[in-house]
Amino acid sequence: MNLRVVLSQLGLLAVLLSMIMIATATLFLGTESVMHSRIDGHAVTALFFAGSIGSLIGGSMWFFNRSGRRYIGRKEALLLVALSWIVGAALAALPYRLWAALDHTQTAHAFSSFVNCYFEAMSGLTTTGATVLSEIESLPRSLLLWRALTHWLGGLGIIVLFVAVLPGLGVGGKRLFQVEAPGPAPEGLQPHIRETARWLWYIYLGLTVTQALALWGVARMDFFDALCHTFATLATGGFSTRNASVGAYYNTPAADVIIIFFMFLAGANFGLFYQACRGQWKAILRDTEFRFYCCLLLGGAALVCTAIAISGNPIALTDGTQLPSTVGESIRQGVFTTVAVQTTTGFCTSDFNLWPFLAQAVLVTLMFVGGCSGSTGGGIKVIRIWIAIKVLIAEIEHVFRPQVIRPVRLGRTTMDPDLKLGTVAYVLGSLLLVALGGVTVMLLEQTNPNSTCDFTSAATASVATLFTIGPGLARVGAVENYGWFSDASKMVLCVLMTLGRLEVFAIVVLFSPSFWRRY
Amino acid sequence: MNLRVVLSQLGLLAVLLSMIMIATATLFLGTESVMHSRIDGHAVTALFFAGSIGSLIGGSMWFFNRSGRRYIGRKEALLLVALSWIVGAALAALPYRLWAALDHTQTAHAFSSFVNCYFEAMSGLTTTGATVLSEIESLPRSLLLWRALTHWLGGLGIIVLFVAVLPGLGVGGKRLFQVEAPGPAPEGLQPHIRETARWLWYIYLGLTVTQALALWGVARMDFFDALCHTFATLATGGFSTRNASVGAYYNTPAADVIIIFFMFLAGANFGLFYQACRGQWKAILRDTEFRFYCCLLLGGAALVCTAIAISGNPIALTDGTQLPSTVGESIRQGVFTTVAVQTTTGFCTSDFNLWPFLAQAVLVTLMFVGGCSGSTGGGIKVIRIWIAIKVLIAEIEHVFRPQVIRPVRLGRTTMDPDLKLGTVAYVLGSLLLVALGGVTVMLLEQTNPNSTCDFTSAATASVATLFTIGPGLARVGAVENYGWFSDASKMVLCVLMTLGRLEVFAIVVLFSPSFWRRY
Repeated sequence: MNLRVVLSQLGLLAVLLSMIMIATATLFLGTESVMHSRIDGHAVTALFFAGSIGSLIGGSMWFFNRSGRRYIGRKEALLLVALSWIVGAALAALPYRLWAALDHTQTAHAFSSFVNCYFEAMSGLTTTGATVLSEIESLPRSLLLWRALTHWLGGLGIIVLFVAVLPGLGVGGKRLFQVEAPGPAPEGLQPHIRETARWLWYIYLGLTVTQALALWGVARMDFFDALCHTFATLATGGFSTRNASVGAYYNTPAADVIIIFFMFLAGANFGLFYQACRGQWKAILRDTEFRFYCCLLLGGAALVCTAIAISGNPIALTDGTQLPSTVGESIRQGVFTTVAVQTTTGFCTSDFNLWPFLAQAVLVTLMFVGGCSGSTGGGIKVIRIWIAIKVLIAEIEHVFRPQVIRPVRLGRTTMDPDLKLGTVAYVLGSLLLVALGGVTVMLLEQTNPNSTCDFTSAATASVATLFTIGPGLARVGAVENYGWFSDASKMVLCVLMTLGRLEVFAIVVLFSPSFWRRY
Repeated sequence: MNLRVVLSQLGLLAVLLSMIMIATATLFLGTESVMHSRIDGHAVTALFFAGSIGSLIGGSMWFFNRSGRRYIGRKEALLLVALSWIVGAALAALPYRLWAALDHTQTAHAFSSFVNCYFEAMSGLTTTGATVLSEIESLPRSLLLWRALTHWLGGLGIIVLFVAVLPGLGVGGKRLFQVEAPGPAPEGLQPHIRETARWLWYIYLGLTVTQALALWGVARMDFFDALCHTFATLATGGFSTRNASVGAYYNTPAADVIIIFFMFLAGANFGLFYQACRGQWKAILRDTEFRFYCCLLLGGAALVCTAIAISGNPIALTDGTQLPSTVGESIRQGVFTTVAVQTTTGFCTSDFNLWPFLAQAVLVTLMFVGGCSGSTGGGIKVIRIWIAIKVLIAEIEHVFRPQVIRPVRLGRTTMDPDLKLGTVAYVLGSLLLVALGGVTVMLLEQTNPNSTCDFTSAATASVATLFTIGPGLARVGAVENYGWFSDASKMVLCVLMTLGRLEVFAIVVLFSPSFWRRY
């Protein structure tokens, strides 16, 4: 294990994050007079402070380890990826905590506890979007922007950015990318890792600019809000600047439509956009995963909309307004929520905790599925679900026709037996982790005799964090937050977020003794 | 597809079941005067009637198809196994329904509905032990014996008995046995199928006699009750003759001990008893599955007992008595319930629905595990859980050391890749079926606006029937019953029981169009 290269790269990452913090603070230095909401000078100070501390520590980590061997092996790559999120979240949490410490009127604020700040930062960097805050709009704008930025930075993966921006990883760069790009390797991407990472970065940036302009120009959203919501959309994060999430823009349906469209894009394989840029449109339509992704979204939305419409119960928006469940309203709320949930964004416009059982069952099922491989979405990933279904069907056929070996195909290629076993094991492992997470949270909550945590809340909190969605059901529903959990439960949920974002095994291996053994 | 041989063998099975019904009725013909409980002549008539109808139909099925080819292929074997349970349950339900029809004082009885009777019969033959009856003790003794007999007959598998008793299956016999004997083929058994089946039958009979004598002689149980409980224990069924299940014998702790011991044996691989009979004791102690089975039982019981003891809540016996949770009482109730649940017997002595969350979580987890392969227990089976764990560990190691191919071992043999994939797929498929079953039941219950079915009840009913346990949590808990479900839900649960008993895939293939295609 070459720890020095890990520490030096981690140091560079910390410096990068710190620079962005300082840049955020700078933006709000001279513009206080044109701001609409409450300006908090303490927040700008906190961002500067945190940025300085981060630069100092990160810089020294890099400086004292810069002379080590440059070679980064698989183990180093895994460790670096895991530490990037774990340490990155601690750094990203610093401005929240410092702000609460500097402002003495904020003693009872959620950010007075470092665990809460860490949860919020981890939720941001893993693009989960679960919040500990019940009151978001009173947060200073600089912190709101930093909060949205954690999503955006986490979004395509700090690491892809890291590979594209920072030099000096050599052959290790490819390994990093393999770990980071979620799911089986996206087909359309070339192995020239630096080149690819730069392409992904351009695509991501292009989408960001397009969506922000659309929200600002077409949906007439405030530019600041448009930018923050764009960051949260493309990262499939879910942090909003409004207490009612996207439900606050009920009167501008164009905002819903634009956000639905970009959530849909963010949940698709970014390799496809690369192909689209090169004019290979047919490849997109032929892509098995993309087609299955569209089918799931359409089928899921159809079921959810029908369930709401026929239930006849009024629809409660996230701001508390009650609306009759007309066909049009059912479609609008059903489609938005289905897309928000499956892409693992977790924006809310209405309180689906009050919806009929069928709609909730479909939504929870789609939470498990998640986005496509190579997207910013979480979940088990569409392609793995597709492979698992194919394998299950093949196994059933095997029972009555054991002599026939029918290869399981994916597009035009035959699936490797190792890939089949790995995929099915991954799906099974994820389900077990959800159960384990839910039970652990439930047990931790029960140590407090006053806790009113029910199993639905604990279990859906586990699902919603492991699969980086954000809201769940019951007490972690669309209009609720995670602030009421005990510190121990919050740390467990942070672990689940990391596990989910880094595709489980990359983190689990760190706890394997043989990982640390030399040979 | 050679349907004639399937029909003729099915006819013979029906005749066999009918003969046992008539024999049961005969036992109660002249002995009415020595009975302690209420004697119901109608029940004896119903058994005779049902037996006659069954013999007639079964006999004709055999007679008109006896001249077909004797060859029984894999498809025929699968179809015969599935139909044996589906048709067998219909026949076994007949006495219940006829009894309710003949006795005009019973109009409001649960058995006035054929769906209820079918549920009870299927629950018996699949050794599930879920009942629709809230009042069991008022049932005529002849019907109680028949009810216990359905367990016993289903227990080791009607089909193993069928193979041992009935001639004329030729090479197909081996196929039947492969489908029937649950789990990967038991190691100690020889391929001489008739010989093996006969051995299993002797072992089963021997255990039955031993347990019945122990319950009668040592625990001083009424001989009739001893016999019925023995049938339910060795089949890992769970039907009791008492409303309070085994909780009715609280004052004779010996009954608990004897039942725990025989439940433990019934959940173990019967191939091991065959080896024990041949003096190969070491093989038993070396058996991976048996060792893991013991570890799970010990570990599970330790957790459950601790959870009850430290909770300090009083323990409620199934007859309603409240007891303080002393250490001794916690151990007694905890061990009994853990063994009853993991072996999928489902006998109850106390209402574990009131136990702390940890105890319930452990019990539900053990429900998924179930008994050993080649036992009468249900569940996913201990060996499959063991293999799945091994595969998951190997997959995690694969992430950071992809070049190392470490073979997954089972005892001394290296596991075949097909077996690994098949096992993990089986575990995953079972979990999906539980979820699907729970959601389906919940949706069916919701079509009735007055239904008060909660998701815990629906989900644990799905677990408890698919894995042939019997009681679940909430409204299907230890002191509840399944009578309140709608007919549609009961039929879904019947399907789950069949799927679980026949190891899922054997039934699912029947719905595959290519199964029915010729080639």
